[in-house]
Amino acid sequence: MHSDDLNARAIALHARHPGKLEVRPTVPLETQDDLALAYTPGVAAVCRAIAADPSLAYRYTIKANTVAIVTDGTAVLGLGSIGATAALPVMEGKAALFKEFAGIDAFPLCFAADGADFADQVKNLTPVFGGINLEDIAAPRCFEIEEALLDCGIPVMHDDQHGTAIVVLAALLNACRVTNRRYEDLSIVIVGAGAAGYACARLLRCIGYEENVCQPIRDLIVCDTRGIIHRGRPGLYANKYKFILADETNRHHRSGSIADALQGADVVIGVSAGGVISREMIRGMNPDPIVFALANPIPEILPEEARAAGAAIVATGRSDYPNQCNNVLAFPGVFRGALDARATRITDGMKIAAAHALADCVAEPTAERILPSPLDRAVTRAVAAAVKREAIRSGVGKEA
Amino acid sequence: MHSDDLNARAIALHARHPGKLEVRPTVPLETQDDLALAYTPGVAAVCRAIAADPSLAYRYTIKANTVAIVTDGTAVLGLGSIGATAALPVMEGKAALFKEFAGIDAFPLCFAADGADFADQVKNLTPVFGGINLEDIAAPRCFEIEEALLDCGIPVMHDDQHGTAIVVLAALLNACRVTNRRYEDLSIVIVGAGAAGYACARLLRCIGYEENVCQPIRDLIVCDTRGIIHRGRPGLYANKYKFILADETNRHHRSGSIADALQGADVVIGVSAGGVISREMIRGMNPDPIVFALANPIPEILPEEARAAGAAIVATGRSDYPNQCNNVLAFPGVFRGALDARATRITDGMKIAAAHALADCVAEPTAERILPSPLDRAVTRAVAAAVKREAIRSGVGKEA
Repeated sequence: MHSDDLNARAIALHARHPGKLEVRPTVPLETQDDLALAYTPGVAAVCRAIAADPSLAYRYTIKANTVAIVTDGTAVLGLGSIGATAALPVMEGKAALFKEFAGIDAFPLCFAADGADFADQVKNLTPVFGGINLEDIAAPRCFEIEEALLDCGIPVMHDDQHGTAIVVLAALLNACRVTNRRYEDLSIVIVGAGAAGYACARLLRCIGYEENVCQPIRDLIVCDTRGIIHRGRPGLYANKYKFILADETNRHHRSGSIADALQGADVVIGVSAGGVISREMIRGMNPDPIVFALANPIPEILPEEARAAGAAIVATGRSDYPNQCNNVLAFPGVFRGALDARATRITDGMKIAAAHALADCVAEPTAERILPSPLDRAVTRAVAAAVKREAIRSGVGKEA
Repeated sequence: MHSDDLNARAIALHARHPGKLEVRPTVPLETQDDLALAYTPGVAAVCRAIAADPSLAYRYTIKANTVAIVTDGTAVLGLGSIGATAALPVMEGKAALFKEFAGIDAFPLCFAADGADFADQVKNLTPVFGGINLEDIAAPRCFEIEEALLDCGIPVMHDDQHGTAIVVLAALLNACRVTNRRYEDLSIVIVGAGAAGYACARLLRCIGYEENVCQPIRDLIVCDTRGIIHRGRPGLYANKYKFILADETNRHHRSGSIADALQGADVVIGVSAGGVISREMIRGMNPDPIVFALANPIPEILPEEARAAGAAIVATGRSDYPNQCNNVLAFPGVFRGALDARATRITDGMKIAAAHALADCVAEPTAERILPSPLDRAVTRAVAAAVKREAIRSGVGKEA
């Protein structure tokens, strides 16, 4: 579809009815008796019960099934820092997907906040919510905010980070199957050290998280606009998260350009900007390379070019090519599972369980099909079940 | 109904499905094309349009029809400061009523915040909402918070204050008709100087607000637990809002007890606590007194006792007596009208217009029927139309 046409149709859809969400009662409110039960005076008995035992909020209130979609509008899609108001259509869309895919009631909270107390403000609203999905918050702020919220008592996940990382890991597991590789033998290069790059690096670099032991895979290198991130880079201490990347990745202390990084790599994961990977770079990779070019709408390298340069498997973020890495494959199931287990947080183990379940949704992966369709509703159920199981196993959740 | 039975049924209703609200998409999300329009990549066009012209949020987002129900849980029903989590069932009920009565999508925000920056935190969330309904916040904090939010650009109303005041004014207008009095000749005593008492005092004390001129009615006195509030009371400056009441009411500088205040009054409005008004006090009032005993669930005086002491008209907050002063008669229409006019605030003129429209919903008022039924859905439409008209007339709103 021509993008002008798509844009015009999107505007028309949004103008037809202002907003993509509505909030509806689930109880009858027709009679005086209905009002007396759902509102005053009957509701007071429910309030008293929760005041005496706050955990009853999960039995009597929307908290059990409601997730906040929280943003400050600082990194909205590829549009940059467009602010809280302009971010709202994306958050509404996300909330709509939560309901549609996972039956979760999600509500957008766009904060016009840029102060250091943003995380505190979000924390103050946890009484209403069973989970918090952080969205479209610029790096490195997004890392700080998520960190500050991790112990707030309900599961918190920055989807741009971990949703992406889960889908990438799932795709990579199936790409290994298709190309007959073992995951632990991979040499991976991540191009992009923003929210998605950072989270991918931290989730992909190890195998065996389940036992709380990180057994590093063969090698994982992260590049940003200045090239390979390594411990010797001047000024590294200025950015805590770049420092962590330097510390946790690139075990052979390589330095150089993106092209240098790709020399001899099995996998390249682009989470950066359109066009930054050339055919030449792909040609420098190991035979049958795996290329995930996830920048949207223009990938780091177009699939046809990557193929021409020898890529065995190509994935993008786009729906008009095979192997779409779409976060809707992960976040509905992750939150569904976390809510169902009443998990207090989302652990790396839960993310890895989600990735395995997602990968297993494709019975026989091929080069053109390492991920299921984003429209396949069975995916959410499979991911949710795996996440719930792992939450209970690891003790952050329980049988409801 | 026996209250134990009511409580058990209320608990059962709330346990059947956790929460009284759900958030649903209003757009289809079945096909790849649906997703491309409602979410990425199509939604980017909508975001860009709003970034360029933020007023388009009213055309393309939920802001047009969404109200936040904001509380800190410090004065929930008659239960006191039970906290944000235990307040949630009330806020959900309120949101359900918003949808049911006014078609407004309302969402509960229970803040676990007690700092001075609570109002700022609410203000930071205005991008998402077209209006803010403050609820169950203790006095005098509620006055400060509302004041701090008045200029935030969207209508803000503390319902415990102004919803109550609107319904009381409407009831009083019809009580005047029934007892053949002129409103401006009334001598009114308000018992209770909390949220509702303060707002009633400020709304009822004048006629002719419409022309921005306050022509005081004959007399209006406010009592708190220490008796009549007057300018000579020691320590009055310690509470700004008591000081305002002393300054704006009680033009004859009377002092004394509630019983003293009621001597020679036409109207008593109880917004305090059960049982504080005696038959004896009613007998001291002018002939055919008007008695609104609104404390819940136990009124300041029971209707049968007030009648026995000579009351011509009695109203309560209860549904099992005639003349129920129920805020659901006001807030849905007030916000509907304010949203329809895209009003930037809710003025005294809009509240008075709402009261007149509400009073006029009873074609022929009688002593047993000075207010319409809270279940009458025509009331919201009438109130909304009047509020919208006044918003536009006074320039705080416009034709959409």
